[in-house]
Amino acid sequence: CSGSKLWGGRFVGDTDPVMEKFNASIAYDQRMWDADIRGSKAYVKALEKAKLVTADEMNQILQGLDQISDEWSKGVFVVKPGDEDIHTANERRLKELIDAPAGKLHTGRSRNDQVVTDMRLWLRDAISTLTDNSLQLISTMVERAAVEIDVLCPGYTHMQRAQPIRWSHWILSGAIAGTPFDIDRELLRKELGFDDISLNSMDATGQRDFVVEFLFWASLCLTHLSKMAEDLMLYSTKEFSFVTLSDAYSTGSSLMPQKKNADSLELIRSKAGRVFGRCAGFMMTLKGLPSSYNKDLQEDKEAMFDCYDTVHAVLQVTTGVMSTLKINQSVMEAALSPDMLATDLAYYLVRKGVPFREAHGISGKAVFTAESRNIALNQLTVEDLSAVSPQFESDVSSVWDYRSSVEQYTAPGGTAKSSVAAQVEHMRTWLKKLEQ
Amino acid sequence: CSGSKLWGGRFVGDTDPVMEKFNASIAYDQRMWDADIRGSKAYVKALEKAKLVTADEMNQILQGLDQISDEWSKGVFVVKPGDEDIHTANERRLKELIDAPAGKLHTGRSRNDQVVTDMRLWLRDAISTLTDNSLQLISTMVERAAVEIDVLCPGYTHMQRAQPIRWSHWILSGAIAGTPFDIDRELLRKELGFDDISLNSMDATGQRDFVVEFLFWASLCLTHLSKMAEDLMLYSTKEFSFVTLSDAYSTGSSLMPQKKNADSLELIRSKAGRVFGRCAGFMMTLKGLPSSYNKDLQEDKEAMFDCYDTVHAVLQVTTGVMSTLKINQSVMEAALSPDMLATDLAYYLVRKGVPFREAHGISGKAVFTAESRNIALNQLTVEDLSAVSPQFESDVSSVWDYRSSVEQYTAPGGTAKSSVAAQVEHMRTWLKKLEQ
Amino acid sequence: CSGSKLWGGRFVGDTDPVMEKFNASIAYDQRMWDADIRGSKAYVKALEKAKLVTADEMNQILQGLDQISDEWSKGVFVVKPGDEDIHTANERRLKELIDAPAGKLHTGRSRNDQVVTDMRLWLRDAISTLTDNSLQLISTMVERAAVEIDVLCPGYTHMQRAQPIRWSHWILSGAIAGTPFDIDRELLRKELGFDDISLNSMDATGQRDFVVEFLFWASLCLTHLSKMAEDLMLYSTKEFSFVTLSDAYSTGSSLMPQKKNADSLELIRSKAGRVFGRCAGFMMTLKGLPSSYNKDLQEDKEAMFDCYDTVHAVLQVTTGVMSTLKINQSVMEAALSPDMLATDLAYYLVRKGVPFREAHGISGKAVFTAESRNIALNQLTVEDLSAVSPQFESDVSSVWDYRSSVEQYTAPGGTAKSSVAAQVEHMRTWLKKLEQ
Amino acid sequence: CSGSKLWGGRFVGDTDPVMEKFNASIAYDQRMWDADIRGSKAYVKALEKAKLVTADEMNQILQGLDQISDEWSKGVFVVKPGDEDIHTANERRLKELIDAPAGKLHTGRSRNDQVVTDMRLWLRDAISTLTDNSLQLISTMVERAAVEIDVLCPGYTHMQRAQPIRWSHWILSGAIAGTPFDIDRELLRKELGFDDISLNSMDATGQRDFVVEFLFWASLCLTHLSKMAEDLMLYSTKEFSFVTLSDAYSTGSSLMPQKKNADSLELIRSKAGRVFGRCAGFMMTLKGLPSSYNKDLQEDKEAMFDCYDTVHAVLQVTTGVMSTLKINQSVMEAALSPDMLATDLAYYLVRKGVPFREAHGISGKAVFTAESRNIALNQLTVEDLSAVSPQFESDVSSVWDYRSSVEQYTAPGGTAKSSVAAQVEHMRTWLKKLEQ
Repeated sequence: CSGSKLWGGRFVGDTDPVMEKFNASIAYDQRMWDADIRGSKAYVKALEKAKLVTADEMNQILQGLDQISDEWSKGVFVVKPGDEDIHTANERRLKELIDAPAGKLHTGRSRNDQVVTDMRLWLRDAISTLTDNSLQLISTMVERAAVEIDVLCPGYTHMQRAQPIRWSHWILSGAIAGTPFDIDRELLRKELGFDDISLNSMDATGQRDFVVEFLFWASLCLTHLSKMAEDLMLYSTKEFSFVTLSDAYSTGSSLMPQKKNADSLELIRSKAGRVFGRCAGFMMTLKGLPSSYNKDLQEDKEAMFDCYDTVHAVLQVTTGVMSTLKINQSVMEAALSPDMLATDLAYYLVRKGVPFREAHGISGKAVFTAESRNIALNQLTVEDLSAVSPQFESDVSSVWDYRSSVEQYTAPGGTAKSSVAAQVEHMRTWLKKLEQ
Repeated sequence: CSGSKLWGGRFVGDTDPVMEKFNASIAYDQRMWDADIRGSKAYVKALEKAKLVTADEMNQILQGLDQISDEWSKGVFVVKPGDEDIHTANERRLKELIDAPAGKLHTGRSRNDQVVTDMRLWLRDAISTLTDNSLQLISTMVERAAVEIDVLCPGYTHMQRAQPIRWSHWILSGAIAGTPFDIDRELLRKELGFDDISLNSMDATGQRDFVVEFLFWASLCLTHLSKMAEDLMLYSTKEFSFVTLSDAYSTGSSLMPQKKNADSLELIRSKAGRVFGRCAGFMMTLKGLPSSYNKDLQEDKEAMFDCYDTVHAVLQVTTGVMSTLKINQSVMEAALSPDMLATDLAYYLVRKGVPFREAHGISGKAVFTAESRNIALNQLTVEDLSAVSPQFESDVSSVWDYRSSVEQYTAPGGTAKSSVAAQVEHMRTWLKKLEQ
Repeated sequence: CSGSKLWGGRFVGDTDPVMEKFNASIAYDQRMWDADIRGSKAYVKALEKAKLVTADEMNQILQGLDQISDEWSKGVFVVKPGDEDIHTANERRLKELIDAPAGKLHTGRSRNDQVVTDMRLWLRDAISTLTDNSLQLISTMVERAAVEIDVLCPGYTHMQRAQPIRWSHWILSGAIAGTPFDIDRELLRKELGFDDISLNSMDATGQRDFVVEFLFWASLCLTHLSKMAEDLMLYSTKEFSFVTLSDAYSTGSSLMPQKKNADSLELIRSKAGRVFGRCAGFMMTLKGLPSSYNKDLQEDKEAMFDCYDTVHAVLQVTTGVMSTLKINQSVMEAALSPDMLATDLAYYLVRKGVPFREAHGISGKAVFTAESRNIALNQLTVEDLSAVSPQFESDVSSVWDYRSSVEQYTAPGGTAKSSVAAQVEHMRTWLKKLEQ
Repeated sequence: CSGSKLWGGRFVGDTDPVMEKFNASIAYDQRMWDADIRGSKAYVKALEKAKLVTADEMNQILQGLDQISDEWSKGVFVVKPGDEDIHTANERRLKELIDAPAGKLHTGRSRNDQVVTDMRLWLRDAISTLTDNSLQLISTMVERAAVEIDVLCPGYTHMQRAQPIRWSHWILSGAIAGTPFDIDRELLRKELGFDDISLNSMDATGQRDFVVEFLFWASLCLTHLSKMAEDLMLYSTKEFSFVTLSDAYSTGSSLMPQKKNADSLELIRSKAGRVFGRCAGFMMTLKGLPSSYNKDLQEDKEAMFDCYDTVHAVLQVTTGVMSTLKINQSVMEAALSPDMLATDLAYYLVRKGVPFREAHGISGKAVFTAESRNIALNQLTVEDLSAVSPQFESDVSSVWDYRSSVEQYTAPGGTAKSSVAAQVEHMRTWLKKLEQ
């Protein structure tokens, strides 16, 4: 019982052109031409050492590969029909250039070996670029934090005003979320070391942990930036007006002449989804695959390239946004309101020996009293306050100072000037160490 | 070569208790006790018709099942060790009650048949409840929109003020995003019909489209509500102050006495992630499974139950939030600013025959002029304007009226009073039709 | 406190070229050139009716648009720097061609309106193509099922041999999982209708349900095909050898000369992950967005295009695979083993009045007896069997016939010849109805 | 314009009970009771050092906390209405026990601090348990690999027989994929160190990297195990029959008496989806959140607990499966077929100086010749082979030995006995180092 063409297959001849295109990866994997050539150059040296090619053959192959490399750099390499992937294309070209010895280059290694080696080499370079981008962004933020350390603004939790903080404290909360960058770089570097991959040959070609971990790192990194972008979008609404985005990172509206949209921030925010989708998709592709190589793994490359390109662009745009952003100090500080010092009012009582839970309750009553009289919390007189609790005395007036409030938080990680300055120094030292 | 216990298995005896627990589903599937009994009652009638049980046996089984149902409703049914799932538990209990005839109940049907039938029955009821919840939410929003039709507020795109709109227009943009509810209910109803599942027996027990589609509907529904929650959080910041959340849906801070957090909205926003995670997880579990029944499908139930519970709670809380929310009309209307009428200024010119692209440019120049003089757009005199374009005449003053601006948009779907009222009527009619 | 260039921004001049590229969508959205022109042609007619352009201007615009359409079809349209998206490009070209009247084309509609209309138009055509692809695949499968109705093979659950089935029954379990195609097409058609989108203008431009629903449909569709591919890969292992893939859908190994890999099936299986990743990514991008238009929505197009291309290729390749697949009937039928009739052995007893649970136990004992003697189940003599249960008599030999076993399942959806033939007819009728 | 109750809210009174339940986390976070008490005991010591409580108050608080700890361990702690989370419950109970001083315990720390500290403490213990589980599994696999090193079986790529390998090589490919476990443990340990979290207070309470990284590690870990489970399911089909699962990890069928299903493996395979769904869901919840604490973060705990429980069970069940699995050496070795030595045939020529690409082609022709005569590759005579290529001589017969074939791969990571033994030793050394 044969099925061939019985049921009206769409095509004639030996191969289905849709299948051929479906199968080919040359359209995107040619991007690894350099890694492929570097890998082959290393491999031919190993072949020579193992006496599988002669020194003369090795030299011919090396020269051929150098010429191919030259053609790619100059943009004159011609991909021909039948070049289904970058490995086939380079090998086909090598054969055209040096003929016979080219056939020996792949003795004892499979396409899968080549693919996975090329990807690791490419990704190592890519990560190095992204690390530079990250450091540039972090460095921009750290220097801004240093310069703008005297600016206060409301700290928010639940999108509601909480306590006064230094603006630089906010900046560094972003920069510090950036520290995982380095950890992951170390992790990935270790992953990319050649000692690890030689432990088991099936494992080496059949798993893609290094890709998945990169995709995940990219997702987590952009999720952090999506949060920073969300904050900045809030701060740049007319209602907040804390920051003004540079025109270089804004666009106008085709309909409404007055509008200036924070497109750059919206795009940054959106990319977390895109990159995580790539991670989710590839994880799903991996789920339940039998071990060793399966063609399903071919999904690795487009995901890797797309995440690299996306993170690369996002880091650069974010650096641009952060280095040109104008902050509106007077608006920020005008947004500080006396009710944000209600915790300080409670702390005033704590310092007089009142248990915190009780002090919290008393301060809450003061807030309620002010609200019901429709006045600000600091407009309550000492008499008003001592009616709420006899422990309030005339020195309570010292509470109503935003700078003093902020200066209380001198513990490491706090929002006092000394503490924020220490964070700046910590980051500068860390950056300097990395640059060496 | 036997492996038994050679490598230090942790357990002794015939079965691994961890495995037994890993395998059992009774902890969560007992929730389907009613569906299981209803399914068995229908099945025994079919058996009697097929002469596989006698009328007497059928009656014994039906009475036994009724008693079990009674035990479950009263909370006195005792799950015993060995009851790995709800089907086993009910069958074990039936055997205790009526002995011999119980053994005939499962003639010609497999556990897999039972599982999938019970799930469909349970989900049909669950969807009916969620539909009621949805309609209650939509109805609340429609009635608010009707009452508050005269309130204007800024419309935002890119989180920036765009053009004035009616507040009711915003409300209905949420309610209308709600219309898919009904479409999906129809889709699912169709899915749940018994004609469909009997087309192919392998397909009936081996696929879970009805679960996946429910999980996806739940994800899309909560993604919409996450957007509505985000809007309302923005509008309830101190900086916007457009709306005030009822105390019933707010919480205080353990540290900061003055705070009132919109926890309800944050929880609503967060649940889109949770529910979509369930959908993503189950899709990944399904990927690449061989056809027909595999135990992997057991992941269906916890996902289904969790999504139901989550959507059920979210819809109720959102209804509560929307029915008790206080809007601050004066703040909303004070947020309207003359630059939001820049499009109207361009339309003024369009009506005088200026092509829109040119009019857009002229209006932009007017915006720029006002900005550079640091005055509002409507503070430009007719002379100022006619310096920008000679077509501006004294009747341009008619542009500076927010209500007139809004009243221009009388097309279906627009923000004019008549148009918004039509949307309200459309939704009311739709709701009424569903209630019948 | 101004930030411009203080912190070492990478670029000089007014705009950041990285940002410009990051912002532009022309690289992928030019694919919608036809939809954009069709949309504009309809819009200018509406403008003329509203007296916002004259009949003469309308005709100039229509002719200009036709010429642009002509340029795109011939591949001579030149995208210029500054053409950030397809809408800008077409409008810029129109201005070059007809000058002044071009500026009136966009009176009263925003870019967002255009984007969303173009996408809906494009997707409607795309879905129509995918529907054709789906029907071609389903039709191929139905006709194979009709021709090969007499082939038996093992049915598997849990990847273990369960009961004998007809091969056509398996084929149709795939085809029937295909039925949702049409349901979704109806759903999407409804979504795409213009009545729906005009209910609320904010909702129309700010939501992307029609994209998400398409991405989800694509994911569910490819998840089904990943299961079918997994089955066929199993069946094409040397160990199963049930089917032989056509050379047109196989590839060789660069290392191992004897290998013939089922690359087509592996690629089909892998794409479920890719497409679902797009859906997951876009859902994540949507989560928590404020209502109305945000630039984040720009992620919609690449996801939509990629899913379309992927599903389009997968459906065609699957049709090719299914129409050229060779089945090995003798191997399939040789894989049927007497223990697969253990259920029939139990049914034999049920027909003699033994309750099913008891009959199941007796049959299990017979299986155990045969296994412990290391013989096949049908090699047990009547004496052996009656030692297990006295109800076994000489007519038990009638049980050991695979074709009779299969013929028992005459209920709708069963695996009897009449039932499978009815499924074939049902599908043919459904296909014919759609073709009209 | 007030909204209260105007639109038919479902509830009366001050709070909505649905909201209260929606808001509460006590149902699942009580699991952290021990971490909460340990955290509070450390904190009160810090308060005493800072002179915010006296030594006497500290001692009362410590004793009170010890008593609460005792109540939880004995299962007698009573959760009361109003105990919305574990922190509230413990504090409420402390107040009942020691009254006034209890109110001082939370001076200067917020609920968010407590939550995040408790989670880190809990997760540190949980990871330690999972590390033990992982090591037990790896150790089981390493010892099996050592004992079964002489068993050969087919290696598969693309689910097709590729080359002969040692069974132990396969086992170690799983164990080695296990090595990332340790790397991540180091990463997480570093994450959990208190130096890191104190860098910035906003960052400390507002990000959940340590949770996301754990969820991702769990997903990647279970994705690896899903692959191992898929392999073992394939190997345990009747058609492969390479391995027999212990009864302790199998289940029967309610319908088909002969069946023995590999439920344990199917459940292992399915859990990758579940756990990744949790990761995906939480990532989506995090996307676009404003910085600092938002209630959305409450989704962290159920995800963390569920992933822990799932990985914990999966690792134990996998260890059980792997320690009791019976392998069928004779079946495995009978599955080796001469065409799997086609690469060796090519290598035979390479050793005689033929370039690999040419040798690959010649060997392919030999395969084709054998196939077209319907004989095995090793049944070709020397004459047959030399007709294909004159370089084949009588010593070609040495190629047809599976053990010699396997013994060629002595490079690190290869499948030769010495190489696999080296992998075993490597893993043993690594395990020993960890146990110290």
